[in-house]
Amino acid sequence: MRLVNLMCGAYHKQFRCLSSKITEEVSKLLALKAQQGTDKDEKAGGKFVLKTAKGTRDFNPRQMVIRQQAFDKIIACFKRHGAETLDTPVFELKEVLTGKYGEDSKLIYDLADQGGELLSLRYDLTVPFARFLAMNKVGSIKRYQLGKVYRRDNPAMTKGRFREFFQCDFDIAGPTDPMIPDVECVRVVTEILDSLDLSEHVVKINHRKILDGLFEACGVPETQFRAICSSVDKLDNSPWEDVRREMTDEKGLDPEKADQIGQYVLRSGQDDLVEQLLADTKLCSSKSAVEGLEALKLFFRYAELYGVKKRVKFDMSLARGLDYYTGIIYEAVLTNQNPEEGVGSIAGGGRYDNLVALFDPKAKAVPCVGVSIGIERILAILENREVNLKMRTVETQVYVAAAQKNLLEDRMKICTELWDIGIKTEMSYKANPKLLGQLQTCEEQGIPWAIIIGQSELEKGVVKLRHVVSRHEEEIERTKLADVLKEKLSAPVF
Amino acid sequence: MRLVNLMCGAYHKQFRCLSSKITEEVSKLLALKAQQGTDKDEKAGGKFVLKTAKGTRDFNPRQMVIRQQAFDKIIACFKRHGAETLDTPVFELKEVLTGKYGEDSKLIYDLADQGGELLSLRYDLTVPFARFLAMNKVGSIKRYQLGKVYRRDNPAMTKGRFREFFQCDFDIAGPTDPMIPDVECVRVVTEILDSLDLSEHVVKINHRKILDGLFEACGVPETQFRAICSSVDKLDNSPWEDVRREMTDEKGLDPEKADQIGQYVLRSGQDDLVEQLLADTKLCSSKSAVEGLEALKLFFRYAELYGVKKRVKFDMSLARGLDYYTGIIYEAVLTNQNPEEGVGSIAGGGRYDNLVALFDPKAKAVPCVGVSIGIERILAILENREVNLKMRTVETQVYVAAAQKNLLEDRMKICTELWDIGIKTEMSYKANPKLLGQLQTCEEQGIPWAIIIGQSELEKGVVKLRHVVSRHEEEIERTKLADVLKEKLSAPVF
Repeated sequence: MRLVNLMCGAYHKQFRCLSSKITEEVSKLLALKAQQGTDKDEKAGGKFVLKTAKGTRDFNPRQMVIRQQAFDKIIACFKRHGAETLDTPVFELKEVLTGKYGEDSKLIYDLADQGGELLSLRYDLTVPFARFLAMNKVGSIKRYQLGKVYRRDNPAMTKGRFREFFQCDFDIAGPTDPMIPDVECVRVVTEILDSLDLSEHVVKINHRKILDGLFEACGVPETQFRAICSSVDKLDNSPWEDVRREMTDEKGLDPEKADQIGQYVLRSGQDDLVEQLLADTKLCSSKSAVEGLEALKLFFRYAELYGVKKRVKFDMSLARGLDYYTGIIYEAVLTNQNPEEGVGSIAGGGRYDNLVALFDPKAKAVPCVGVSIGIERILAILENREVNLKMRTVETQVYVAAAQKNLLEDRMKICTELWDIGIKTEMSYKANPKLLGQLQTCEEQGIPWAIIIGQSELEKGVVKLRHVVSRHEEEIERTKLADVLKEKLSAPVF
Repeated sequence: MRLVNLMCGAYHKQFRCLSSKITEEVSKLLALKAQQGTDKDEKAGGKFVLKTAKGTRDFNPRQMVIRQQAFDKIIACFKRHGAETLDTPVFELKEVLTGKYGEDSKLIYDLADQGGELLSLRYDLTVPFARFLAMNKVGSIKRYQLGKVYRRDNPAMTKGRFREFFQCDFDIAGPTDPMIPDVECVRVVTEILDSLDLSEHVVKINHRKILDGLFEACGVPETQFRAICSSVDKLDNSPWEDVRREMTDEKGLDPEKADQIGQYVLRSGQDDLVEQLLADTKLCSSKSAVEGLEALKLFFRYAELYGVKKRVKFDMSLARGLDYYTGIIYEAVLTNQNPEEGVGSIAGGGRYDNLVALFDPKAKAVPCVGVSIGIERILAILENREVNLKMRTVETQVYVAAAQKNLLEDRMKICTELWDIGIKTEMSYKANPKLLGQLQTCEEQGIPWAIIIGQSELEKGVVKLRHVVSRHEEEIERTKLADVLKEKLSAPVF
């Protein structure tokens, strides 16, 4: 008869041994199978499909450990920069989200109208943060927030793109002198990616005023700025020819103007490019462009002082879709050429000086800048890396085992004693478990110490203390058990 | 001109000084005012109401600190008992939740049908956990989970009843010998409530088989068990007369049978009551009742061994509405007579041996028992208690201040140096902040150390290190600054 402990062990082992590749393939097949099953089952009135909602997933204990370790590092960085945290509800009044996300608004999840308010799931943490600032009349705060957000996007779960996913946001709100907090946000991103050993990354930057100025200088009508900007945004994944075609054929832009845009948006560099552009008379005919370029000049100066300049790339094609950005925009991408770790955006953000005013009854503006770390993609990489690593998902320090039958009550008493002094203690849930099974549990779960009790030893007033890894055993006086364990457990971990 | 730092300080102070009572009253008034505004504004096509969705709330940084401290204690207890954690999505396929919550199912939030699957927000963490077990074929696990759940209930926010609220769940799944994990769940609840200094509490227990047996013995038709059970549940808040009237007038129960029920459900006690009932020939005519009573007898024996017997009360009126319980049921209530801390359920749970089978394609059962801590009510109490306590919401250790103008770049360099070695460091976001304002920020935010730089000192290669509380200042060599701070910060906190 197998014991519950053994099953527990097997469960752990299972999670340890499966590579996430396999897990992924299996879940794809299962999903497919489930999907095929749907029609038949539904018609037959049978059981429903056993799955999570499209684009969402469970996290098993192993994934949770990896996730928590990453969160701890991210939060440590946010605190190192003086941020405090807050929390907002997972849904907002629908109208709070309306008109903030440009073309992406169609991806917002709405709640059913069950009488009462019209509600939507939050699409990011930024808009609820701005709502919080206006509602509580907070004029200045440095805050971080970790939370799930929701987008009815086409999920690409293998690439870490989900419909429910975590964002880790850091924002600095309140009046400041130019660019000081803007550069600190980049510093925060690089500190975090470094601490997660994702060191090969680059933070692409651009400035909304440069984009606007560029369109102005190239003769794009102001009404078309947003549409053309959204085309430029696609240079990420599409060649210039396709983007140009979209501008001219779909959006009706004069081909000559498109070509002028092409001469700018394909360029990237550092402060040298800023200087070149400041000498470009056509671009500098736009006041907006000059302002943006001067801002980036300052940005590079501060980036040098904050030790992050080598990580920054001024990329004139970086546009970012969201409506609310007003100044600098960022996007961090991994440059690692390991194809398994993929390439793609893992953090993004920018300055949004007018968002809070949209919520304030008196339209009072609170300038803000912030960055959002997209943790799912990072987790996918970390999970793949640590797939063969032995990892504990429980922290149990002591396992109370019985060598014979009829010792349940004695095991319970010892557990109580150890819980009382804060020692992480477990025992079998069987009344009369076999010793071998109990010891196997200890080994499989990496529990460092086992107490083994027997009738004759208890009568002598002693118990056995077993060091699980070395299998070394010593006899301890029952009355001194708690003290001995306290001492052993305060010693360095082995 | 006021500095951003001062504003930041004022903001902190504001949160510290407002008693939560006042906050509550103000928010009630604001909500009222906002509500009054709605009709007018909507008619005028003006701004929408600035609020969170009904029954939900934001947590400010101070509340977050209190919440995190409580979570830390709760998680520590779960880990002390060997639990690992997992996470599930905030919404599930609607059919996953269907038929699990009895009369309460009407409180489930549905998502709008935007094409695709029909989804609902999770109502608790238990049903998604059971879905997880069946989907991943997990036969045995001890897991904890902290997460928000959603109920379209009538919010009573002053009593800690919300539409979005946190639950902290601990569950033991898998085959075990009787009552061992069931009693451990009560031990977990009392450990947690003790660690939160909510020591005056009692854990009421009952058993579904005793309730069913009691109805059987009193001649209630089996088809009416659920309906009568749900009336019994109301004895919490209503006198017996009202409950009796509901049974007879609304649910058509024979008055004589109702009176017989009344002779049982108003009783409470400990193992003495179990013994009395085991000698009650009428009740013991029901096999189900005998099984339930024998189970509670064992429960009390183990509760004694686990040191929690004095906290347990066998309450025959405890029913709990949810459909999925099959064995023991619990409910922890505060017995503190401090009216401000209120009385009410702060934890609940029970055994649900058939829930996983509802999800398993082969109806394979996984016996489970668990408990859910209702943290919102606990938080309301803790927030009230700590309302006058000075509390830091940021952890900044060092503030880099300038005594004169034109030292921004030097401040940036020092911040970079300190961030590089992991010291939590901040500075003003003004290019030329006033010294007084900077020092005020340190005092208001409880930052222990300030570095003050000046032009002439920098030229001499020194900086001033100020101990903020004592205002003691010393001169430190600029090159040794990092080392000196590392040493100061590893010293005990003062």
